[in-house]
Amino acid sequence: MFKGLDFFFNPGSIAIVGATDKPGKISSIVLESLKSSGYPGKIFPVNPNYASVGGLRSYPSITDINEPVDLAVIAVPAAKVASSLKDAAGKLKGAVVISGGFSETGQKGRALERELKETARREEVRIIGPNCMGIFDTVSRVDTFFIPSSRVKRPIKGGLSIVSQSGSFAITAMDELAAEGIGVARVVSYGNRADVSEADCLEFLAEDDETTAVALYIESIDEGRRFVEAASKCSLKKPVMAIKVGKYGAGAAAARSHTGAIAGRHEVYRAAFKKAGIIELEGYEDFLAGCKAFGRKLPLSGNRVMIITDGGGIGVSIADACYSAGLDVPPLDEQLKDELSMVFPSYFAIGNPMDLTGSATDELYADALETALESHSCDIAIVAALWGPPGLTDNLVDMIAERAKAANKPVLICSPGGDFTRKRNELFKERNMPVFTTPEAAVTAASLLAKAAMLKVKR
Amino acid sequence: MFKGLDFFFNPGSIAIVGATDKPGKISSIVLESLKSSGYPGKIFPVNPNYASVGGLRSYPSITDINEPVDLAVIAVPAAKVASSLKDAAGKLKGAVVISGGFSETGQKGRALERELKETARREEVRIIGPNCMGIFDTVSRVDTFFIPSSRVKRPIKGGLSIVSQSGSFAITAMDELAAEGIGVARVVSYGNRADVSEADCLEFLAEDDETTAVALYIESIDEGRRFVEAASKCSLKKPVMAIKVGKYGAGAAAARSHTGAIAGRHEVYRAAFKKAGIIELEGYEDFLAGCKAFGRKLPLSGNRVMIITDGGGIGVSIADACYSAGLDVPPLDEQLKDELSMVFPSYFAIGNPMDLTGSATDELYADALETALESHSCDIAIVAALWGPPGLTDNLVDMIAERAKAANKPVLICSPGGDFTRKRNELFKERNMPVFTTPEAAVTAASLLAKAAMLKVKR
Repeated sequence: MFKGLDFFFNPGSIAIVGATDKPGKISSIVLESLKSSGYPGKIFPVNPNYASVGGLRSYPSITDINEPVDLAVIAVPAAKVASSLKDAAGKLKGAVVISGGFSETGQKGRALERELKETARREEVRIIGPNCMGIFDTVSRVDTFFIPSSRVKRPIKGGLSIVSQSGSFAITAMDELAAEGIGVARVVSYGNRADVSEADCLEFLAEDDETTAVALYIESIDEGRRFVEAASKCSLKKPVMAIKVGKYGAGAAAARSHTGAIAGRHEVYRAAFKKAGIIELEGYEDFLAGCKAFGRKLPLSGNRVMIITDGGGIGVSIADACYSAGLDVPPLDEQLKDELSMVFPSYFAIGNPMDLTGSATDELYADALETALESHSCDIAIVAALWGPPGLTDNLVDMIAERAKAANKPVLICSPGGDFTRKRNELFKERNMPVFTTPEAAVTAASLLAKAAMLKVKR
Repeated sequence: MFKGLDFFFNPGSIAIVGATDKPGKISSIVLESLKSSGYPGKIFPVNPNYASVGGLRSYPSITDINEPVDLAVIAVPAAKVASSLKDAAGKLKGAVVISGGFSETGQKGRALERELKETARREEVRIIGPNCMGIFDTVSRVDTFFIPSSRVKRPIKGGLSIVSQSGSFAITAMDELAAEGIGVARVVSYGNRADVSEADCLEFLAEDDETTAVALYIESIDEGRRFVEAASKCSLKKPVMAIKVGKYGAGAAAARSHTGAIAGRHEVYRAAFKKAGIIELEGYEDFLAGCKAFGRKLPLSGNRVMIITDGGGIGVSIADACYSAGLDVPPLDEQLKDELSMVFPSYFAIGNPMDLTGSATDELYADALETALESHSCDIAIVAALWGPPGLTDNLVDMIAERAKAANKPVLICSPGGDFTRKRNELFKERNMPVFTTPEAAVTAASLLAKAAMLKVKR
């Protein structure tokens, strides 16, 4: 027996309605994705026009399948979706309706969506969508995201789950996370939200052991009270962050023509997020920084940042950004300062930021980081490693990664620059270190970690 | 005869004081850089300990050189810098003093810096530095930045000039610009500013035909009135932007131990920037966005942004960011809307943002951009090209670049994503298109262009 939305996230079998071998067609890509992701359950192509699709027997309709079908992926024209569901009467638990042409397109589409909703309720089928990408799940290996992996890479398995009204937003973030080497658990693109809502997803993810953090992209919320309840429950167990777009004017109008969402006053959302223990994200960059910070399961401690760098100007910029973000950049403890003064050259700036200048070496860098992490006034370390100084070698990457591992505090790498630097950034990522290419991005991540730490203390 | 600071930016000959063949030493890298940048003037190594350095005759002192010497690059210990200058009495016009160990290190260093200043005044030698990287100049091919180009790439020739108190900030930006394919004219890192100041540089750059835009990184200003006068003169002729770091608390303290700068109240700087027609940059990301926008010499028109995308959520995010930045996202003209409605599928969202959805093709994208650019209510177009849709091919890059070239309005590419997308971003850059990898970065650039357009109108 399935509990809650389990049949979406762990279906034993999947029917693809409108399946075809025609290359580039949505259902053809979905079939390909399910195969290449290694989905272990049964796949049933459904199309009355073919005897077989993708080397699998094709069925005229779902009811012709003489085995249980947990989930259907539907990618037929909008006008035919409701009747597809009717055909599957009593057979189906859930359906991902990819098809667009519903409430996002105006009056006619709204009528079709009403019909879809009523049919689903009558047939007792839960629906994700319409006008969505559906589910990418590294646990069950379900992948209904209909963009070939040659164009948009899928992230590895991890603990971050993403719930997004926008498919393009979700898939772009996935693509970036794949490039970063950051893993995800479940990604849901729910589009027009005819049925399954962000509240439903949050209820599932609150209980989901695979999920260690949740990131939401929201254009609107339809059941405010249920949302706050579900999010509160979830945020008690794991960090929940959310971006609410369509804040004002043109953005709000665009959200409406995008998923039919009525964006609502932003202040109301802000208050709801606060009540629910949700960390608000201000935009795409925030969203990415949050995914990087929580995707790597960094420890949560507090809001005092120590900055270690070999580039004075970048260190000052980080300190400024910390100030703007409300983070504390406390002075280095006098005792540690005295200790370092005895080992470090006189022209190093020993403090916070700590500036090792162009004379930095791997060893001095590692010493400085170790000392900063030892300090009782350090909750988060930002290491702004500029690779110009000749005393710095690739060994520095391991030395920093080791110090970070030994400390129960997050160590964020801030590493702006060109080709040489970008190659070293890959080395950091391979060692599971979170890398940010600007002072602002590193500080945003620090700020989100500090907020999560504060919420954790409150529990 | 040299005018103003010409001998720094177009010296006929350069002496390297403290020259050595020892690999990794500053003066060795400077000699290497001057050679590999193709500096066409004469280079004189100066070191009493060697007969030759780098295959060139080495002189015991500058006065031993029987030819005119315009510029010296000095990289000897702090205590010896003033005496090196004295030795060159009457021979030298300018010196780049790379050596650190001056006012940034405390009382003793401050005394050394006072001595250096007095010597320079007495000997009538202008000084850039100390504690700086000096000059990188694509016009004269002077390169005193003592980081090997294997670690930090040099940008190509272009119109952007950068004046930075911080060497690491300047060199990191240069490295990023090199990776972006954006060119620079002159880059000055002036460190402790014992003599040549940002005002001096601005006076030079105002008259410099090679420079089409100026970006400043400032920790402090010492002659406020002269700075405002010089910047005002410069901003009448070309866009001038500036980041002022060390705004508050820890950042201000760090600036002091970095270049000995006393940061001062930020509000005062803000008012000075406004008076001088300087566009203020808030941080490193702003700085980069500004360099990308003005480095590509984009046309300046106004503050009304049209957004064309195939990813609804990204489009909404851009619209939100525009709102936050104070940019206008006007509705699409009714007539153009009607025209597009006749050619575009009904499920495209025709408006602003314009969302071509996953059914986008190269042709429809190009049509949408062309229409947006035609609109009288469009000053800037942001094209958020997500590469998921199978109808999009590499041809789209050329088609967008052509439409952008034909219009006298800036077209900014916003292209977030992973490996596939990043490769396409390189194609855009090769066609001289400015590429931004987040909605926020693209909107920041749009906002800076809008500010520059407004300042231009005021002239």
